[in-house]
Amino acid sequence: MRIRRIFVANRGEIAVRIIRAAKELGIATVQAVSAADRDMLAARLADAVAPVGPAHASKSYLNKPAMLQAALDAGCDAVHPGYGFLSENTEFAAMVEDAGLVFIGPRPETIRAMGDKAMARAIAAKAGVRTVPGSEGRVEGVEAARRVAEEIGYPVMIKASAGGGGRGIRVASTPAELEALIPQASAEAQAAFGDGGLYLERFIARARHVEVQVLGDGERVVHLFERECSLQRRRQKVWEEAPAAALPADIREELCASAVRLAASVGYRGAGTLEYLYDDDSREVFFIEMNTRIQVEHPVTEMITGIDLVRAMIRIAGGEPLALAQGDIRATGHAIEVRINAEDPSRGFLPAPGTISTLTVPGGMGVRFDTMLTQGYAVPPFYDSLLGKLVVWDDTREAALARLTRALGELRVEGVPTTAPLHAALAADPAVRAGAVHTRWLEAWLDAHPLAPPAPPQPAEPAVPARETLQRA
Amino acid sequence: MRIRRIFVANRGEIAVRIIRAAKELGIATVQAVSAADRDMLAARLADAVAPVGPAHASKSYLNKPAMLQAALDAGCDAVHPGYGFLSENTEFAAMVEDAGLVFIGPRPETIRAMGDKAMARAIAAKAGVRTVPGSEGRVEGVEAARRVAEEIGYPVMIKASAGGGGRGIRVASTPAELEALIPQASAEAQAAFGDGGLYLERFIARARHVEVQVLGDGERVVHLFERECSLQRRRQKVWEEAPAAALPADIREELCASAVRLAASVGYRGAGTLEYLYDDDSREVFFIEMNTRIQVEHPVTEMITGIDLVRAMIRIAGGEPLALAQGDIRATGHAIEVRINAEDPSRGFLPAPGTISTLTVPGGMGVRFDTMLTQGYAVPPFYDSLLGKLVVWDDTREAALARLTRALGELRVEGVPTTAPLHAALAADPAVRAGAVHTRWLEAWLDAHPLAPPAPPQPAEPAVPARETLQRA
Repeated sequence: MRIRRIFVANRGEIAVRIIRAAKELGIATVQAVSAADRDMLAARLADAVAPVGPAHASKSYLNKPAMLQAALDAGCDAVHPGYGFLSENTEFAAMVEDAGLVFIGPRPETIRAMGDKAMARAIAAKAGVRTVPGSEGRVEGVEAARRVAEEIGYPVMIKASAGGGGRGIRVASTPAELEALIPQASAEAQAAFGDGGLYLERFIARARHVEVQVLGDGERVVHLFERECSLQRRRQKVWEEAPAAALPADIREELCASAVRLAASVGYRGAGTLEYLYDDDSREVFFIEMNTRIQVEHPVTEMITGIDLVRAMIRIAGGEPLALAQGDIRATGHAIEVRINAEDPSRGFLPAPGTISTLTVPGGMGVRFDTMLTQGYAVPPFYDSLLGKLVVWDDTREAALARLTRALGELRVEGVPTTAPLHAALAADPAVRAGAVHTRWLEAWLDAHPLAPPAPPQPAEPAVPARETLQRA
Repeated sequence: MRIRRIFVANRGEIAVRIIRAAKELGIATVQAVSAADRDMLAARLADAVAPVGPAHASKSYLNKPAMLQAALDAGCDAVHPGYGFLSENTEFAAMVEDAGLVFIGPRPETIRAMGDKAMARAIAAKAGVRTVPGSEGRVEGVEAARRVAEEIGYPVMIKASAGGGGRGIRVASTPAELEALIPQASAEAQAAFGDGGLYLERFIARARHVEVQVLGDGERVVHLFERECSLQRRRQKVWEEAPAAALPADIREELCASAVRLAASVGYRGAGTLEYLYDDDSREVFFIEMNTRIQVEHPVTEMITGIDLVRAMIRIAGGEPLALAQGDIRATGHAIEVRINAEDPSRGFLPAPGTISTLTVPGGMGVRFDTMLTQGYAVPPFYDSLLGKLVVWDDTREAALARLTRALGELRVEGVPTTAPLHAALAADPAVRAGAVHTRWLEAWLDAHPLAPPAPPQPAEPAVPARETLQRA
């Protein structure tokens, strides 16, 4: 079937991203809007908007019946869930398909299988993909957890089976800690995901986060190489790159092959990401989980391959077979994405909603800024703090770092503090420049490098703003 | 020698472009500013600004002693002339080099040879590159012009030997017209370029404008494939593409090879463009002239090759040998650039300076907007009307057209009328979509397709701006 009208079941920059891809394919879009989002850029760019409820996400973007009904009322024949919200919700995907609409993503059973992290581990094992040593499936109760932890060895990570995006993860170094954390983690998982199931994994103290982008059409799967996202704060990625520069060629090859093998074993359809840990010292790679949706950091892959992932997702969902052979996919140069959040790095990354009084977007060769921002936009306090993603591409990683620094220097967002100064500092840091980082590196760095509060807003009267003014003699 | 501080001897978007390249190379910049340009984006981005005189270009950006003195006073060791202004002025290039500074461009003698269009024709002939039949060198006086015109056949074009960028060109269809136009053209050339010299060429009624980008280091020359710029108004390009989709593969190959041959024959240094006419019917290619500078439309070449031309110019000027072998340079996909001018297409493209009250820049994958604009910027009335260049890249020409349409839909410039609606109309035109155009096509199209006046500015109060609002049942 050919998709003609997509319901954009998300907000912010990813909603803009989806609308752009749809427009380029000649497909109409209807933007879901909560009461807080009537004025956002995506609402302006879409062909139509559909109110889906009050500002609070649980009443709008997470409200499955309301979202589906809005899509139906708007005459849509497909739903793009973006990332977060309902993007990995099996029930919502099934509701959409049962209503006769196309869910732009994998089949509900794939989302279920991969969304259950314990089941995903079992699928990986079957496909011959190594996982971090841990429980084979869920652990039921404290006693079972203790037995498993003894086997795999402390410290262990406690993870929510239904979780994702780094949420709800805890580390126990002793049996006593484990006993205390298990009921707490289960209750939180129940509250956050509606499922209190947990599983355990060995905690690897110093590892890189690497991940492989795949595209499948249900019959065939290709990979689009890997990304590295080791710079994280509270397990949230803040800086992502493609390719993973530290990865030896043989490891990269096996990593990408294993991702294709795993995704192919479930007949994967759509865009997906297989996440791994890589230990520089032992050169071991462990599969962690699969994200069955488009990811925040997908643009770095687009920049090195020239392949539009969101457009590919829509085409596949519309029934087109994958247009790409593995041999056609080439990676060129190096790309870096940094997340520009409305947070104050000098105050513990406190989210800081507010109105954008001045906006100057960086530009020029190899620079892409995916954003929901427009001048005068009031950033609402109800959602995550991502304002935009600054993505740069260049021939080499070194050149990309220089371009990133240049582009960050051009970015002007006034009205809210942002994480841009953090990225400028990171881009200048010797360890980041050398690529000598791991998933816990950034938190230690932040402890050692307190960031200055944002500079006061510039005077409204434009002066000559360069740093010196030279008078002719 | 290593360049450490560049004097940006230009303004507007190309000044921003130069500063970006310099920053990425770790080179400081000093921005020349006329009295009208203190607040422009380039002045904000540069490390320093240097006043060079009053608003009128003849007293500032075209004032050779003032520009050189400002560069010296600012402690610069190099000068980047951009395009237009002094970029192809032999005397200025020589003054810069005589003062011990690096002129980021070819040697003065190359600028002189290629800048004299008659001499350029002779050089081409010597390199075995075919030119449009015309006078071998300058024609001195009406009598000589008549003799040459009889030989090459009417209609003939009268061109200023020192001209460029399509300025000062006239067409004579009869000896009487020629007699009337020659003194007039000579006087205008004298006024515009300080040189009244003229030459004649056969007028080719229906041809495409194609051009080849080259880079040389004085020893070796490579090409970066070709562009097509057939959509012109009053001989000014308004829309440019790379590659030239209509060119058969064998013609493209010979075209690029001939460009390298010609540039190599003068030991070319820096970035240059060889311009040709291509006749679809006869499959003949004729060399017209060489531009010894960066061109407005250079980004389309950057988009298909991934090579930063301005950075390459600076490196070469700093004494680095060309880092590229011809075999390393690959073209991928298709790029289109459209010029966004502060002109009202509904009123004969009347230049329309004013203050930018709202600015939303298009973004997303494969979109680049090179601009001098910021919100609140007052476009001065003293210079050309180029506000920015919207450049898109995609897999295919068809996809690039769809992306262009999408990006034009995102662009919001309020406060001045712009040529964006012209480009949106062109992107939808069947002849443009089929690539069935020639250098005189656009003027005829404009006569047949009067454009509507710009829509009144949107109300300041944001409403729900999508075209329909759907209420949930």
